[in-house]
Amino acid sequence: MWQVYLSGEIHTDWRDQIISGADQRGLPVTFSSAVTDHEASDAAGDSLGKEASPFWRDHKSAKVNAIRTKTLIEQCDLAIIRFGDKYKQWNAAFDAGYCAALGTPYITLHDADIVHPLKEVDGSAMAWAQTPEQVVELLVYLTLQQ
Amino acid sequence: MWQVYLSGEIHTDWRDQIISGADQRGLPVTFSSAVTDHEASDAAGDSLGKEASPFWRDHKSAKVNAIRTKTLIEQCDLAIIRFGDKYKQWNAAFDAGYCAALGTPYITLHDADIVHPLKEVDGSAMAWAQTPEQVVELLVYLTLQQ
Amino acid sequence: MWQVYLSGEIHTDWRDQIISGADQRGLPVTFSSAVTDHEASDAAGDSLGKEASPFWRDHKSAKVNAIRTKTLIEQCDLAIIRFGDKYKQWNAAFDAGYCAALGTPYITLHDADIVHPLKEVDGSAMAWAQTPEQVVELLVYLTLQQ
Amino acid sequence: MWQVYLSGEIHTDWRDQIISGADQRGLPVTFSSAVTDHEASDAAGDSLGKEASPFWRDHKSAKVNAIRTKTLIEQCDLAIIRFGDKYKQWNAAFDAGYCAALGTPYITLHDADIVHPLKEVDGSAMAWAQTPEQVVELLVYLTLQQ
Amino acid sequence: MWQVYLSGEIHTDWRDQIISGADQRGLPVTFSSAVTDHEASDAAGDSLGKEASPFWRDHKSAKVNAIRTKTLIEQCDLAIIRFGDKYKQWNAAFDAGYCAALGTPYITLHDADIVHPLKEVDGSAMAWAQTPEQVVELLVYLTLQQ
Amino acid sequence: MWQVYLSGEIHTDWRDQIISGADQRGLPVTFSSAVTDHEASDAAGDSLGKEASPFWRDHKSAKVNAIRTKTLIEQCDLAIIRFGDKYKQWNAAFDAGYCAALGTPYITLHDADIVHPLKEVDGSAMAWAQTPEQVVELLVYLTLQQ
Amino acid sequence: MWQVYLSGEIHTDWRDQIISGADQRGLPVTFSSAVTDHEASDAAGDSLGKEASPFWRDHKSAKVNAIRTKTLIEQCDLAIIRFGDKYKQWNAAFDAGYCAALGTPYITLHDADIVHPLKEVDGSAMAWAQTPEQVVELLVYLTLQQ
Amino acid sequence: MWQVYLSGEIHTDWRDQIISGADQRGLPVTFSSAVTDHEASDAAGDSLGKEASPFWRDHKSAKVNAIRTKTLIEQCDLAIIRFGDKYKQWNAAFDAGYCAALGTPYITLHDADIVHPLKEVDGSAMAWAQTPEQVVELLVYLTLQQ
Repeated sequence: MWQVYLSGEIHTDWRDQIISGADQRGLPVTFSSAVTDHEASDAAGDSLGKEASPFWRDHKSAKVNAIRTKTLIEQCDLAIIRFGDKYKQWNAAFDAGYCAALGTPYITLHDADIVHPLKEVDGSAMAWAQTPEQVVELLVYLTLQQ
Repeated sequence: MWQVYLSGEIHTDWRDQIISGADQRGLPVTFSSAVTDHEASDAAGDSLGKEASPFWRDHKSAKVNAIRTKTLIEQCDLAIIRFGDKYKQWNAAFDAGYCAALGTPYITLHDADIVHPLKEVDGSAMAWAQTPEQVVELLVYLTLQQ
Repeated sequence: MWQVYLSGEIHTDWRDQIISGADQRGLPVTFSSAVTDHEASDAAGDSLGKEASPFWRDHKSAKVNAIRTKTLIEQCDLAIIRFGDKYKQWNAAFDAGYCAALGTPYITLHDADIVHPLKEVDGSAMAWAQTPEQVVELLVYLTLQQ
Repeated sequence: MWQVYLSGEIHTDWRDQIISGADQRGLPVTFSSAVTDHEASDAAGDSLGKEASPFWRDHKSAKVNAIRTKTLIEQCDLAIIRFGDKYKQWNAAFDAGYCAALGTPYITLHDADIVHPLKEVDGSAMAWAQTPEQVVELLVYLTLQQ
Repeated sequence: MWQVYLSGEIHTDWRDQIISGADQRGLPVTFSSAVTDHEASDAAGDSLGKEASPFWRDHKSAKVNAIRTKTLIEQCDLAIIRFGDKYKQWNAAFDAGYCAALGTPYITLHDADIVHPLKEVDGSAMAWAQTPEQVVELLVYLTLQQ
Repeated sequence: MWQVYLSGEIHTDWRDQIISGADQRGLPVTFSSAVTDHEASDAAGDSLGKEASPFWRDHKSAKVNAIRTKTLIEQCDLAIIRFGDKYKQWNAAFDAGYCAALGTPYITLHDADIVHPLKEVDGSAMAWAQTPEQVVELLVYLTLQQ
Repeated sequence: MWQVYLSGEIHTDWRDQIISGADQRGLPVTFSSAVTDHEASDAAGDSLGKEASPFWRDHKSAKVNAIRTKTLIEQCDLAIIRFGDKYKQWNAAFDAGYCAALGTPYITLHDADIVHPLKEVDGSAMAWAQTPEQVVELLVYLTLQQ
Repeated sequence: MWQVYLSGEIHTDWRDQIISGADQRGLPVTFSSAVTDHEASDAAGDSLGKEASPFWRDHKSAKVNAIRTKTLIEQCDLAIIRFGDKYKQWNAAFDAGYCAALGTPYITLHDADIVHPLKEVDGSAMAWAQTPEQVVELLVYLTLQQ
């Protein structure tokens, strides 16, 4: 059973496409992810008390989220890291660096038009995919039972 | 002697400000960095042969650069990671994630208007500074000889 | 399934509140702890022979207890570290430092009036909670199945 | 040359006694420490901007101090961890736990009347000393050139 | 249950002999391997897009294969590394070096006539076998339930 | 479930006493061990071919045995290391050093008359027991479900 | 100062070319290597006593050589791994695997006609060079003082 | 410069022979060792207060000695571990196991008549020498400047 962590963009259904593709092919893979509900994620620390400063509200929530994300990244065998066409997405690049330092393999998933700004992230990746279908094909190959 | 790695934005003189500030204060600090000449950096792999595909040219150069950057990051005691107001700067966020996984402390240096998209990067940082002068003040404190 | 280690104060029922709260919410969490029976813990080494010196009695028992606590801390994904309003509780702070060095995330649980003396312990924590209910809320969030 | 980190209580001159004792004996030892000026330490993060909340002021300062203390602890060959007769001193116990997890040997320095609450901290220590002179004697022995 | 990784030569049925031998003896062993279909392995990266340059086609496929092989090697308790009488088989020697650096024990499987060129690889091995039957005998011994 | 490795002397039934004691108390413990049949152990490498030199016969068998022992030691949570009153038993002391370097806790089991020559081995142990019954008592305590 | 380990083929003067090239450019680099005198290397263990069996003579020498090579590889910042057009050169591929597992960057140096059998070795490399001059150019770039 | 740790027997002048041999050959080697004065070593903890129980006196001294020995072993590149013809010498075997787990190479130095009881210790060694002269010859070879 392979543990695959899905990191990055939360505005399209790429996670669902990969999960349902793996399911249809019957792959021995389980998936994990950060909490992908944007509002819930921003509010992750609110239950510990309200903050007057936006910086500290973000800080508290980011650290609560990091409990989850670091644990799941450290448990995974492989990460898929998705960059979309909007927003800064520094957290996705952060996860890629985190994987690289741990020696955990990761595959990037992004369009060709952002190849140049992603060159360091792609340089440490094990593969670059452009579609969720390609990711599923790779998972089929990687988990092949002989 | 502290080894400090300076990561990120290459279009303003923040590195020079920190280095000359530390020099004026006589701090026991040495600084290192990626090659910060943008064209030289993009061409880092060209001496190994030209590539027809932009992706592979970037890939070769990124891996040559990574020999230098990973070595220097792994040797440093502290990283300063700078985010400017332009470009994607995914390599800076990648370096932050790399430091976080190694347990190497880092300080972010950026303006207040990008606090929200940087919340995960700041959440794992040891401090957030807004000016190079603040970074120099922290270095004065951190390297205090009693 | 998350492994959560509960460290610190043994004079109130905070462990029970967290465990039953997690149970009521059906969370995929298992809990572990030091032996929390104070007398049994102080006597952990007595079966190996009585000691004339109080120091060596404490020493023997502390090392027997450490077999259990270090093993469980190294296996956990997350620690909750509780400081009450009495006693020195140096063992709780010791566990926090142990987690910090391992890179294991921990959440502190204490009242607001001891924020200042706990600043180093809180500084390396991922979150500070004031009630067991808040801890349960965090566990609900952290273990969310999407 | 041995690197020795001096952790804990800052209200008596135990650090000076150890340092001058080692100096008089000509030992091949260098010493390091947190910033021991209490007010400066509490204000370590103030140069990054004032905080309205005491918790966040402490938090910022604690993280700045941790850049220094974690770096120096990770570089040391041996730590001396001092507990006095006042205050909570949770940071000293935290440092002991940090050393224990790293496998860095440490010696505790405290009076006999707090042996029982320190039993876990002493249980992972390599020695318990009651006076700075005893620590100096141990350093003489440990650094003996044959 | 022991995890055994089978590395190296893919032109004879040595893997099958070991697997069926272990099966007949009822050993508590599971086996893993790279994808051993030569053409599929060379084409491992083709689903990500065709490459004009043979070097980059090989490179892409090698990295996709490495996701699988490094993961399985890091999970195994023991590797069997087979050298045949043809081809360069540098990947087998690479796997041996990888195991050596991880501290993962490995057994080499090769004929006597290549002892000299394999001396560094054998020097870090835990045993040298000449037949699959010998490997099965070792597995019987190693997994003995007393 | 705790994994306990039983190392050392093979001429008395101390292993059986501990295993049956744990069984009678219903402890959540599994035990592992080197192959304890002396002749089989000395012959562990013989299936790979006979050796003319006693040194190399021993060497081959020792390395085959090490595949098993290092794997089981690295998997265990706790080791019990037994020294009897005969023979050199350097392998038991070797296992103790191996555990110490890994940070794996171990308990020594030996009579009082060899305390002095075992002082370094006992110095890194978490406890010293004199009878198998004492070891069982410790296991009862360590695995207590609260 | 960068430490560069030169691994592989010993029949041409590629090491001298790199060392003298670095010297002429005044690079802050020191080089290390296995003992490259073929006969001396094969005889590395002979001073410990002659062996009747060629396997054990090779084995003894290989292990003596490994003391040197593993130490130097673990100390280096970068390895250059050379494959020539003759011999099996499994030790070079072994060193590449060793570096890969340690996370130590390496550059391969070989002709284009062996790209395919070296694809796994190149796949984990940071760069592929075809001439010693290219390696020197990379070292100039990597060690650039800004 | 190589750091070599000399472990084991303290009743003959083997250390002096190796050190003076290396000195005469001008080798780039520095040597370290436990405190080899038997009485001083047994009394290493006495300055911390007298103990009524022989076990605890030994325990205190063993732990003080371990501060020195573990630090020096962890710093060394190579250990020489000597077994004489008298005494239990469990500390030497302990040091061998400690080195093995760290991946630090060691060479054993002992006569042929104790090959069998040392087979596990020799099995993890990189070489077995019978005389100090042989050790010096190995050091000459290992530190060869080309």
